Amino acid sequence: MLQDIIENNKKYQPGLSIDCVIFGFHDNQLKVLLIKVKHSKKWSLPGGFIPVDQDIDTAAATILNHRTGVEGIFLRQFATFGKTKRNENHFDKETLEKLNIPEEKGTWFNQRFVTIGYYALVDFLQIVPDSANTHDIVEWIDHKEVPELILDHKEILEKALDCLRTELNLMPVGYTLLPEKFTIPELQKLYETILDKKLDRRNFLRKITNIGILKKLDEKKNNVAHKAPNLYSFDKDKYEEVLKNGLNQGW
Amino acid sequence: MLQDIIENNKKYQPGLSIDCVIFGFHDNQLKVLLIKVKHSKKWSLPGGFIPVDQDIDTAAATILNHRTGVEGIFLRQFATFGKTKRNENHFDKETLEKLNIPEEKGTWFNQRFVTIGYYALVDFLQIVPDSANTHDIVEWIDHKEVPELILDHKEILEKALDCLRTELNLMPVGYTLLPEKFTIPELQKLYETILDKKLDRRNFLRKITNIGILKKLDEKKNNVAHKAPNLYSFDKDKYEEVLKNGLNQGW
Repeated sequence: MLQDIIENNKKYQPGLSIDCVIFGFHDNQLKVLLIKVKHSKKWSLPGGFIPVDQDIDTAAATILNHRTGVEGIFLRQFATFGKTKRNENHFDKETLEKLNIPEEKGTWFNQRFVTIGYYALVDFLQIVPDSANTHDIVEWIDHKEVPELILDHKEILEKALDCLRTELNLMPVGYTLLPEKFTIPELQKLYETILDKKLDRRNFLRKITNIGILKKLDEKKNNVAHKAPNLYSFDKDKYEEVLKNGLNQGW
Repeated sequence: MLQDIIENNKKYQPGLSIDCVIFGFHDNQLKVLLIKVKHSKKWSLPGGFIPVDQDIDTAAATILNHRTGVEGIFLRQFATFGKTKRNENHFDKETLEKLNIPEEKGTWFNQRFVTIGYYALVDFLQIVPDSANTHDIVEWIDHKEVPELILDHKEILEKALDCLRTELNLMPVGYTLLPEKFTIPELQKLYETILDKKLDRRNFLRKITNIGILKKLDEKKNNVAHKAPNLYSFDKDKYEEVLKNGLNQGW
């Protein structure tokens, strides 16, 4: 892609990029999809430039796919980052040499880039990164063990996590993240992992029940020593309705 | 500003602009601050270009001030709009002529502009537009009577209104929009105007009381025929706390 940009920099929107924060949940773990460009010591969010003939939402999906092999995720735009010095010195002389970019072409990279952030929450077992077609290393990394990232990518990641937590107060989550039948403690654990805090069992049960998106099944979880917990599934119609209208907790 | 841009278009971030949606509330009315460039028949949101040496948040405040004379508003970024054809034909040959822009300079204006949306909610009596230093007409227009706007500005306005309504579910509003002492029906009317729907009196009272941001005063509203309603004020400390932590309705 870099060679393509050098040859055709008029094909890309100048001074504008996209970065994607992909959160992956599975079995009580929250991870983030990160990449490492081979010449770099630091990890980064998967990102790239915007073809002048693509809507930005389309460009976000294309970029994510090119950098990680990941497809078919619904990406949500959450914020745009544009401090003047955010990419200062990122493409210094040494880096340009390593990347085989002639110095005079480097000016395109060295303008201030404003970057548009997109995020998604997926089941990380369902989404298989494929670095075969990229020159990057692609990995799911636990969100509590994210190493140093390039530029302001840590700030972008934190902001995305804030948005994800706010989203929990506005709409239901879990439909694609839990097995078809699950227990209340499993659902509570999902919320606790994303919010990074313990929730009171009774309050959680009351609130989640009030939303009305759960169907109590006539089954109990197997293989549990004693007091087997009830199984639930999502009431799909009601879930869709709440997604559309927001949680009952609104005005 | 246009002349400045023509002469110095390297001083501005190419292909990127900012548009501001300023909602003004007062006395049960919700208005939007709109401008009309003198040569144009259509109204638009106050917007402009981003100096390469300014952070985007700073640029937003500067642009709003230059276009409307309005100062000291806390602007919140809410979304970025970047469809490929959003500003197609906006600066056509005829417009360029009217604006005295030589056709070859027009190419700068005719690239695709991605625009970053900012919004704010203020008391419109406190914010006085000042078109003395601009070439534009600046007016507060009732949000239900907004005329046709240029480009995708109507879509940007609708999206901002959505965000404002979502905000009501996340944090308290009203501190700068109501008199120091107010009645519950006055507060309810503020919420109803922004949400554009009737709320149940008892439910509203229960929910707003549960948040704990109100102080009931030992006074009643004067000049009311009979059953004078109680006066309230905001408990400033508690209000600030809820602003920081979100409404109790979270998990």
